Amino acid sequence: MTAPSPAVLPIVLDELKAALGPAGWSQDPFTLAPHLTEWRGRWTGETPILLTPGSTEEVAKAVSICAANGVAIIPQGGNTGLVGGQIPYGEVLLSTRRLRAVRDVTPLDDAMTLEAGITLLEAQQHAAAADRFFPLSLAAEGTATIGGVISTNAGGTQVLRYGMMRDQVLGIEAVMPNGEIFNGLKRLRKDNTGYDLKQLLIGAEGTLGVVTAATLKLYPVMRSRAVAMVALETAAASVELLARARAETGGGVEAFELMKRLGAELVIKNIPDTRWPLDPIPEWSVLIEIASGTPGGAEAQLDALLEVAFEEGLITDAAIAQNDSQRAAFWRLREEHSAALKPEGGGWKHDVSVPISRIADYIDEATAAVERFHPGARVSVFGHVGDGNLHYDILPAVGEDIPAFIARWKEGSQVVHDVVARYDGSISAEHGLGRLKTDEVRKYKSPLEVETMAAIRRAIDPKRIMNPAVLF
Amino acid sequence: MTAPSPAVLPIVLDELKAALGPAGWSQDPFTLAPHLTEWRGRWTGETPILLTPGSTEEVAKAVSICAANGVAIIPQGGNTGLVGGQIPYGEVLLSTRRLRAVRDVTPLDDAMTLEAGITLLEAQQHAAAADRFFPLSLAAEGTATIGGVISTNAGGTQVLRYGMMRDQVLGIEAVMPNGEIFNGLKRLRKDNTGYDLKQLLIGAEGTLGVVTAATLKLYPVMRSRAVAMVALETAAASVELLARARAETGGGVEAFELMKRLGAELVIKNIPDTRWPLDPIPEWSVLIEIASGTPGGAEAQLDALLEVAFEEGLITDAAIAQNDSQRAAFWRLREEHSAALKPEGGGWKHDVSVPISRIADYIDEATAAVERFHPGARVSVFGHVGDGNLHYDILPAVGEDIPAFIARWKEGSQVVHDVVARYDGSISAEHGLGRLKTDEVRKYKSPLEVETMAAIRRAIDPKRIMNPAVLF
Repeated sequence: MTAPSPAVLPIVLDELKAALGPAGWSQDPFTLAPHLTEWRGRWTGETPILLTPGSTEEVAKAVSICAANGVAIIPQGGNTGLVGGQIPYGEVLLSTRRLRAVRDVTPLDDAMTLEAGITLLEAQQHAAAADRFFPLSLAAEGTATIGGVISTNAGGTQVLRYGMMRDQVLGIEAVMPNGEIFNGLKRLRKDNTGYDLKQLLIGAEGTLGVVTAATLKLYPVMRSRAVAMVALETAAASVELLARARAETGGGVEAFELMKRLGAELVIKNIPDTRWPLDPIPEWSVLIEIASGTPGGAEAQLDALLEVAFEEGLITDAAIAQNDSQRAAFWRLREEHSAALKPEGGGWKHDVSVPISRIADYIDEATAAVERFHPGARVSVFGHVGDGNLHYDILPAVGEDIPAFIARWKEGSQVVHDVVARYDGSISAEHGLGRLKTDEVRKYKSPLEVETMAAIRRAIDPKRIMNPAVLF
Repeated sequence: MTAPSPAVLPIVLDELKAALGPAGWSQDPFTLAPHLTEWRGRWTGETPILLTPGSTEEVAKAVSICAANGVAIIPQGGNTGLVGGQIPYGEVLLSTRRLRAVRDVTPLDDAMTLEAGITLLEAQQHAAAADRFFPLSLAAEGTATIGGVISTNAGGTQVLRYGMMRDQVLGIEAVMPNGEIFNGLKRLRKDNTGYDLKQLLIGAEGTLGVVTAATLKLYPVMRSRAVAMVALETAAASVELLARARAETGGGVEAFELMKRLGAELVIKNIPDTRWPLDPIPEWSVLIEIASGTPGGAEAQLDALLEVAFEEGLITDAAIAQNDSQRAAFWRLREEHSAALKPEGGGWKHDVSVPISRIADYIDEATAAVERFHPGARVSVFGHVGDGNLHYDILPAVGEDIPAFIARWKEGSQVVHDVVARYDGSISAEHGLGRLKTDEVRKYKSPLEVETMAAIRRAIDPKRIMNPAVLF
């Protein structure tokens, strides 16, 4: 999985240095260090050189030199990926962090063109400055870059209404594996002139080229927003509630986040200054956010929804955030879930999706399977019901020997993923395959699919120099 | 462009007949005739055999036989395409019209899985029966099939809010060019496990396989809807009005159709029982439709919008539809535009898109270029401002010799398309390339793009048996 690439010849390194100039590369261990380790410390790699090109043309120069010499490249954005796809093991590391230009923001087109090194948070800010909204939002948004979230087709908390990163991309500029620049930057909403090449680059995890810039969609700023935390007795009730909420709001549900009691309890226990707004903490909580184009509309829709949901017995309790700081406090309870699990000794983490209608059955069956495989293990479930996307994490039993538990991770994950497969789900809903799931995905994909993907890869990168260890 | 494919050997035809049985093929001229002519009569082809497989497995059998013998196949859906991509010239013709099963409709997933031969109108009806909305809508929806609208990535009138057909597809089942079945039917909203192969099949115009079924997204049914026809002095004002409308409604604009006076006058002249709701017919009209999840919400938003637009001088007159029949009458005025142009002696038709913010300048520059090229020619402009997609059609001068005018079509289209290219637009926004624009597209695409597409096609269909004459 992490066999190192062959050593890069000094003469190639010299050529790269000469092409990019002093600002365009580094071999200084202190500069390199943060680029070589995944932030949770799960992967630490090495590279003969970090390239930091300052323009698309410099990226093209660097890739051309590598292509001519058959040298492998790992493209890296904000280094926030969770599956090891951005960590080099002997390959040249090419960071897009210096590609920082805002090429244009055109509100009448509801579009902006940003270079790859701009962070997701900055992208949201550029949209806001033009009185528009850019919806993609995730925990790492202050660090994750546009190039990275495109290459991994990132999701996050607003997918329910706005879709994944794939849905936000109107156009892409990329340096292809042969070093040529693909200029696919477009502000068009409709363009049926052959295969949509940008769709291949989105989610390709850097295997088909280096994304250097993108034209992204913008949306109207909503005029009202309302957030509630509600209590439910079953996960099945949350699916019914979601359908009801979408109908009542005409699709105005922006987020719908399910949380099982265990995760809620661990947030309260392990994260300072937190309080669950429902007492007692219910078996299942849902954080629901509604937005509307009409001032006051979201609050009215949320009130109407909760009233109906009470009457129908879908929910048993609810707390409505009364102001911005309460809204932020509710969201923090959701966002701190990952951090809250850490002190419990780590876990077997799974980023899975299943059809929404099957979520409740999936949770039951997977939990039973885990209990059989590892009695006493604690199951944490939280995630985006509206996308069928659950963070399904298994924690050791209280007091259990942690290293022994961690050692069973691979086997335990198989148990979970086998249930996912039976429910027509995905073993990587958001995070991608990276180095982590390269082997495993072959178990769940048909040979036809794997071979078709491999054929496309060979067609576009015949020397397999782009991120060679990831995907199939 | 339409060089016929080599003759298919009788032994191969016999094998196909035996594999599909009596219901699965025809060589009867009367049965074949409607499949061989494009509905406007622009292309009429021929085929040694029409295959009408009744299941995905039968499609796979047919394609396998053709693949083994190197025989080319044209897939055909409802035969409503406008660029000749569905008409055979000696190839085997494979119709998906008998693939008629509704595999599932699951409202909790906001999803339905339909086989390729179901029409777009039927798809809308299946959604409605489950208290959901399927948004793709276009003039030929009673005949166009799901397989066809996927293979051409069709658009239509609801793209502004809901996107193209590409945006409606969660999963695809297809028979690949080697005869194997790709089972990509998924009800998942998130799945990051390698390249998104379905994206290649969408809009591939049948060159990468035969789409046999698809899982499509469903949406909530809106609770209120309001339609107005408004008068504007300039096309630029319509772009400002659109931005204003999107902001005021939080993205609730479902349609925004611009119509120039010439087209409006021809509708009134050539289509029985029509009356323009604004008097006099303005230089520019916009049909705007707003929908909301709140009962009464759309009417209130439309009123508020029109009031602001009047105050700001964006519009000079407006008529609001008071009931369903008026709404239908307003829409008919837009939908009859193509039919209204016909009696004027045909025209040079263009299906182009440009960035929304540049629409007005594009119209001015293209119109001036046409006037220089063919003085007196009449320019008709109508289309979807929200998508930057204009139907830009040139009619002969009043009293001009029609055949002489038609003879200048290719040259005239170049004039229009050259302006489109200068505005970073697309020469085929909705209809695809088909046989019509195969050569021309090379002029506007980079060699890198064309070669990358060709490489993908070779990788997936090395014998080039799937719709060999279309695309690059």
